[in-house]
Amino acid sequence: MDKPLILVTNDDGITAPGLRALIKTMKDIGDVIVVAPDSPQSGMGHAITIDNTLYSKKVVIDTEQGAPAEYSCSGTPADCVKLALQEILDRKPDICVSGINHGSNSSINVIYSGTMSAAIEAGIEGVPAIGFSLCDYSWDANFEPALRAVKKIVSQALSYGIPKGTVLNVNIPKSDIEPKGIKVCRQARANWKEKFDKRTSPTGKDYYWLTGEFELLDKGEDTDEWALANGYVSVVPTQFDLTAHHIIPQINNWSLNES
Amino acid sequence: MDKPLILVTNDDGITAPGLRALIKTMKDIGDVIVVAPDSPQSGMGHAITIDNTLYSKKVVIDTEQGAPAEYSCSGTPADCVKLALQEILDRKPDICVSGINHGSNSSINVIYSGTMSAAIEAGIEGVPAIGFSLCDYSWDANFEPALRAVKKIVSQALSYGIPKGTVLNVNIPKSDIEPKGIKVCRQARANWKEKFDKRTSPTGKDYYWLTGEFELLDKGEDTDEWALANGYVSVVPTQFDLTAHHIIPQINNWSLNES
Repeated sequence: MDKPLILVTNDDGITAPGLRALIKTMKDIGDVIVVAPDSPQSGMGHAITIDNTLYSKKVVIDTEQGAPAEYSCSGTPADCVKLALQEILDRKPDICVSGINHGSNSSINVIYSGTMSAAIEAGIEGVPAIGFSLCDYSWDANFEPALRAVKKIVSQALSYGIPKGTVLNVNIPKSDIEPKGIKVCRQARANWKEKFDKRTSPTGKDYYWLTGEFELLDKGEDTDEWALANGYVSVVPTQFDLTAHHIIPQINNWSLNES
Repeated sequence: MDKPLILVTNDDGITAPGLRALIKTMKDIGDVIVVAPDSPQSGMGHAITIDNTLYSKKVVIDTEQGAPAEYSCSGTPADCVKLALQEILDRKPDICVSGINHGSNSSINVIYSGTMSAAIEAGIEGVPAIGFSLCDYSWDANFEPALRAVKKIVSQALSYGIPKGTVLNVNIPKSDIEPKGIKVCRQARANWKEKFDKRTSPTGKDYYWLTGEFELLDKGEDTDEWALANGYVSVVPTQFDLTAHHIIPQINNWSLNES
């Protein structure tokens, strides 16, 4: 059998150490092609570039890794995946992996995540996909203890197949030792309590920095937050059919068609 | 009882005719405060501004409408909602409405939609929320036939209450007559077949424009696409718990914890 073709992308940009760690691990499994943003795109959610141009070029970042084919792109993570699938790759990849993100994409963070939007874009286009994130925002984060779990999850996704309409959201606890194990979870209920840091510019204009505190609203032991807090890797099967199917009957009880 | 407080936002920018139409209609129902992007933010998905500053200022756009309080913001639609809820409003609004978008946000478009990300952000923060979109991309679109349905949906959402964890995604067919009625639907399966229009800049650099064709993969008569194609307003209850709960047992059958 041919080696699997693996599309690797991320949202922290093509030079990010988390991406480099992911490339290194994926080369043990298959043939790697990298298409990643030329600059950091954290918090871009599922943004795409509609009214602007996209640049892309072949780059060489790290010859020591045996030089997989790498392309940088001026767009968002979702743009990178679209460009990879339609323009750069000769055939449909067997899997798309995104990350390893510098920072958590567990619970509600999935909504804002560029890492996950790249994976979700691949999923929408029928390519099995996984987003990986390490719960450590540092640029110098230690990805090494995470790599055995990453390799195992990708290998099993290739063997078992990820169900259609589903993309895996994998988060890895920050640690200098290997995680205790891997838990399949649901997304914990949580939100961010925003705080805006209001300042005045040298020219007298008010401006804000968005800051906030993560607020966990869910103590369930079947959640990603519980798994991470207890030293496990969390795997949340995530879907892009956003319909709240169970709510349809309730809204049908409204009087929407009475005059 | 006090009049309801209605936060109005959008992704096409604060001067968009669709926003103006929504403001006008909402003033029949309650007290309106507008916090909207100072420039178009279509396709921004759930992007937020993390490593950049946000500007916001009070503006007067349309004195004829009786001048509701209006603020423009340099950020994304999700930023606007965060800023409104934390900094601008004195109390939690009774509802947040986003739109009316110039263009469809039905089926898979919900994923890329700035209009819906504003509504979803409000939903995450516990504010009942609805995104409205008209299936007409023109800046000169005719919003008038849609307004009775918009008013009815917002009024009933205020009376019945939108279930927690749910945000309504409302799409309205393009038409010069009133829609036939309102249907509660699921999101149709669809994707975009991208095409990249590759060009060369005056300085010799290759660049791309992202274009594409909408590909409907779902003939269900319970979908938003069916409703819209048949002259009905579609209402899809949309959730921000992205967990594919039904898939968890299947992934639990993988051998993730065998060494």
